[in-house]
Amino acid sequence: MTAQVSLIGLGSMGQGMARNIIGSGITLRGYDVSLDALTRFQSIGGSPCSSVSDAAEYCDLLVLMVVNAAQAEEVLFAQGAAKNMAKNGVVMLCSTVSPSDTRKIAAQLTSYNLVLLDAPVSGGKVGADSGTLTVMASGCEHAFQQADGVLNAISKKVHQLGIDPGMASTYKVVHQLAAGVHLVTAAELIALGAKAGCDVKTLFDIVSTSAGNSWMFSDRVPHMLDEDFTPRSMVDIFVKDLDLVLQTGKDLQAALPLSSAAHQMLVAASGMGHGKLDDSAVVKVYEALMDHSLKSAQNSEVKS
Amino acid sequence: MTAQVSLIGLGSMGQGMARNIIGSGITLRGYDVSLDALTRFQSIGGSPCSSVSDAAEYCDLLVLMVVNAAQAEEVLFAQGAAKNMAKNGVVMLCSTVSPSDTRKIAAQLTSYNLVLLDAPVSGGKVGADSGTLTVMASGCEHAFQQADGVLNAISKKVHQLGIDPGMASTYKVVHQLAAGVHLVTAAELIALGAKAGCDVKTLFDIVSTSAGNSWMFSDRVPHMLDEDFTPRSMVDIFVKDLDLVLQTGKDLQAALPLSSAAHQMLVAASGMGHGKLDDSAVVKVYEALMDHSLKSAQNSEVKS
Repeated sequence: MTAQVSLIGLGSMGQGMARNIIGSGITLRGYDVSLDALTRFQSIGGSPCSSVSDAAEYCDLLVLMVVNAAQAEEVLFAQGAAKNMAKNGVVMLCSTVSPSDTRKIAAQLTSYNLVLLDAPVSGGKVGADSGTLTVMASGCEHAFQQADGVLNAISKKVHQLGIDPGMASTYKVVHQLAAGVHLVTAAELIALGAKAGCDVKTLFDIVSTSAGNSWMFSDRVPHMLDEDFTPRSMVDIFVKDLDLVLQTGKDLQAALPLSSAAHQMLVAASGMGHGKLDDSAVVKVYEALMDHSLKSAQNSEVKS
Repeated sequence: MTAQVSLIGLGSMGQGMARNIIGSGITLRGYDVSLDALTRFQSIGGSPCSSVSDAAEYCDLLVLMVVNAAQAEEVLFAQGAAKNMAKNGVVMLCSTVSPSDTRKIAAQLTSYNLVLLDAPVSGGKVGADSGTLTVMASGCEHAFQQADGVLNAISKKVHQLGIDPGMASTYKVVHQLAAGVHLVTAAELIALGAKAGCDVKTLFDIVSTSAGNSWMFSDRVPHMLDEDFTPRSMVDIFVKDLDLVLQTGKDLQAALPLSSAAHQMLVAASGMGHGKLDDSAVVKVYEALMDHSLKSAQNSEVKS
């Protein structure tokens, strides 16, 4: 008998993952609070559900791509997903969640005869759309087996990180340290360059092909230069991710001065009203602090 | 008549550059305070000189790969290089120097009928050895023409950044912001991962192939994991480079919180006595702060 698979959370990540899961031949039910997201889901061949409990009913594998631990707990326990799932079902949690919350959720699922596959992803909307996410996953053999088809459909690489739910989240949170700091560093660099009279496009070409490059620099600086802040991943998501990094550090008594500085700049971006913009909008904090816009740096170069 | 070319500063960068210049068919004279460096220079086909003024005599193109502006000024003006060079000679300054010091040196050279090619490089010892440095260069047409053969020999890419000496240094200093912050971020990440119970080798594999990667992460973390602190580029060099970044920021009233935090961690590495080690030794600061060594993280994994 074919396993029943559902996905809850059809935002910018979930939608791309859904398309690749459906494309691999898996029948996929889905739910999201946004009617618009449900309509798009239907248009790519998904079966939209009317509620969380509807989506979870008889479900063998429930993929969760919600924003944070609070939403995951809301879906699983307050809105009845855990209660409605098939016996021995697997919850595949793809959201970035703290290791301690992940362990707490896994323990609660046990009382419903369910198991957790701790499965955060990296690669953003581009990776989700193209089915090339990197998945960090930990959980029991049964959980991996049940999720195998979905894992293959959404990822280019699955890192199997043992049986302990919470371990994959640990790797993901630690990974986010670099992604978050590199994002803010990119903004700090390009704003300084503009202020110092560099042609920012030339500066981008130099840094992105030299020892100063990072994945985030190459990916996000073009958004900054184009002033294209259409949210692929929002400022507020990185505020949350660096919250998790700093909380993990604090729990371990591990001081993280760079993460802390980067976090503050993202909090400032949010405080300036840019929380729902693309995370590259953190550059606006630097433009404000330096009283100098990237646009003027580009224009002045064109004029000269 | 063939132009006479000399190189002063035969350290870890200068030696590699010398080999590629000689390899391209240019006769190269050279000088360094270290007798050992001079001996190696001779063994790769260079003509060692007995002093700065000897190396500079009748020289049409003097390549300087010294540590900082103070050394460049010492060589050029205190030890008489500028005085001894051929008329209309070109000084090609490859060291990372502040834009303001670069402009000052260029102005002083003018009174000797010499011109400066502001030509800082990126790519480290590996790039110097393989002749694949990235060169950021600014200066007059004559300077570029005189340096053409050397530029081709040492680099895979020359960014021509206008006629103003100081502009190339501006790009280089701004570039170093990212290199420096990414170096310290790599240390912060890998130390946190070790403390959090990750297998650091697996963590390296994940981050270096995901959105958290940076050029510095891929290049320096292996040194950290191997505890191989043989200096390719020293901690103290990055203390100096981030000094230049922060000074440039201060001159422009540009606040740079991440650069400042990274700088402090490098100062701490130096304060702990690691200034002459490879810059990846900044991880030792985090190991001390977290009371946890990377080695124990690797060993515990082997045991488990």
